[in-house]
Amino acid sequence: MWAGASVRSVSSEIPTREGVLAAATRVAGRIVRTPLLPGRGERRLLLKAEVLQRTGSFKIRGALNFVGALGPEQRSRGVVAYSSGNHAQGVAAAAAEYGIGATIVMPSDAPPIKLRNTRRAGATVVAYDRRSENREEIAARIAAETGATIIPPYDHRLTVEGQGTLGLELLEDLGALGIDSATVVVPASGGGLAAGIALAVDGQHPVLSVVVAEPADHDDHRRSIVAGERVEVRPETQSICDALLQPTPGAITWEVNRRLLAGAVTASDGEVLAAMRWAVEESRLVVEPGGAVGLAAYLADAVPGEGPVVVVLSGGNVDPALLVRALS
Amino acid sequence: MWAGASVRSVSSEIPTREGVLAAATRVAGRIVRTPLLPGRGERRLLLKAEVLQRTGSFKIRGALNFVGALGPEQRSRGVVAYSSGNHAQGVAAAAAEYGIGATIVMPSDAPPIKLRNTRRAGATVVAYDRRSENREEIAARIAAETGATIIPPYDHRLTVEGQGTLGLELLEDLGALGIDSATVVVPASGGGLAAGIALAVDGQHPVLSVVVAEPADHDDHRRSIVAGERVEVRPETQSICDALLQPTPGAITWEVNRRLLAGAVTASDGEVLAAMRWAVEESRLVVEPGGAVGLAAYLADAVPGEGPVVVVLSGGNVDPALLVRALS
Repeated sequence: MWAGASVRSVSSEIPTREGVLAAATRVAGRIVRTPLLPGRGERRLLLKAEVLQRTGSFKIRGALNFVGALGPEQRSRGVVAYSSGNHAQGVAAAAAEYGIGATIVMPSDAPPIKLRNTRRAGATVVAYDRRSENREEIAARIAAETGATIIPPYDHRLTVEGQGTLGLELLEDLGALGIDSATVVVPASGGGLAAGIALAVDGQHPVLSVVVAEPADHDDHRRSIVAGERVEVRPETQSICDALLQPTPGAITWEVNRRLLAGAVTASDGEVLAAMRWAVEESRLVVEPGGAVGLAAYLADAVPGEGPVVVVLSGGNVDPALLVRALS
Repeated sequence: MWAGASVRSVSSEIPTREGVLAAATRVAGRIVRTPLLPGRGERRLLLKAEVLQRTGSFKIRGALNFVGALGPEQRSRGVVAYSSGNHAQGVAAAAAEYGIGATIVMPSDAPPIKLRNTRRAGATVVAYDRRSENREEIAARIAAETGATIIPPYDHRLTVEGQGTLGLELLEDLGALGIDSATVVVPASGGGLAAGIALAVDGQHPVLSVVVAEPADHDDHRRSIVAGERVEVRPETQSICDALLQPTPGAITWEVNRRLLAGAVTASDGEVLAAMRWAVEESRLVVEPGGAVGLAAYLADAVPGEGPVVVVLSGGNVDPALLVRALS
């Protein structure tokens, strides 16, 4: 491969703030403008209630941006995605919105509510065994056979730029509140939401510092920031945060995050369960474990700096049995 | 008493649309502009997520309007209220907002979360026995002793007009969605929220029909509409809807509601529990039984007419144990 072409190709893959602005135009009117709600806390707290988004998580932002950016011919051949749940629902809903087919490769042990909602949105679900099969290979085979386009869950410019539209909303709402600067805490798995928000707010006013939040033993972003390069945690590490089980930051998201992130915080499973209960009692919001990890870090007083904290509640698709456990 | 004065006095007590507009100015910037969210259903469904309001219910709207309308001298002597919970929290928060004292007369068997939140807002709680004591007499005695002003939970012009600000938000949001007409389903106990909304939307565009929702055995509004006059249900009738246990419509609210309500629907305790679970799974919202009775009627296909339905989720202060019951 000619080096010049390779460089050009890689740099065109890196998401940009201009791309986030283009995404905002594509998703306008197709997503919920989720509210920024006041929360109760020692340090001023604002909750970005993205659990109220269509499909119950931020993932539909990236999926709608991706499908919206496809040409008509490519779009007509449908889309494929692999996901433990929220990205699956986002892609299924985005495909339904454009009247095209969607095939989703999902682990057979994904939360039943996520499997059910994906099927209900009209997608074809292909189940695989998380321990013995490779979901990316399965998706690639389906794409090769059908001509469908793969929508990666985080490691793609269009996905990241779509998620970044949430950051534009934060700028607008914090500006309206007269807040000059704040720390934004964002749950991270592959790092797509954090990268998108970091791009959206970069160099803007209000001045926002983006901090990622991770499960205590799945702190690959935190370790990567410390090491200055992508670090992998042991993939078999368990956590109740089923949406945050990627063992390492994405390659493309890391190119953004290594420059723009202000830090990383973590929370234990127990702290996450306590945060889920807090969200029910104090804010009347249902948050899934992965969506509550930033709130858990805030409640444990782990968020660095001073001044207002914006906690992104990124998803709320939790099986009732687990919510009952958090409440009991 | 001279008849003419009596007539003038009664008519000045009846809430008006102009009063709702004045209330909107008083509460602006002090309440959450709660979102109108799309819901999943056969018939187009929109959810007014008032559970996201400060204090977790609509009651703070009326309380802020009331305290805001008091003169400085009267305000400085503090306020008194009697309430099973949500009005208590609303008055406590409104008093704290203005830096004045609040005493709340609450039943000793009120949901612990409502007792706790009222105390936490800085109010003095006076507990009474629901079976042997009269809360209105206790409040009147405190008011006489301290010079504090009683804020009635529903049967007062200022309370009703404050609740009506929710209706103004519906007009704005439905108009922005291009919806020409809709049925609005509103949980009713004393009928203050329904009366306020009915006044706010009366004669406006979009054209909104207001229907009250009640527990199946606490259907005093429904019976009153049928009878053409205020009817009382047996006060000892039980329901899990702890916020909706008034045996009869208010006198002042009825003056509005008898003219403006389009109808009434009911739901059983089982339907209410199912609706609470539905709200968690489908909308990531925590709704208390009384706040979910309209949703329960919608899900049971009991809402009359055709076209879009707006369900007001009026409160979300539910004890975790009851939410667990709904989810199990």
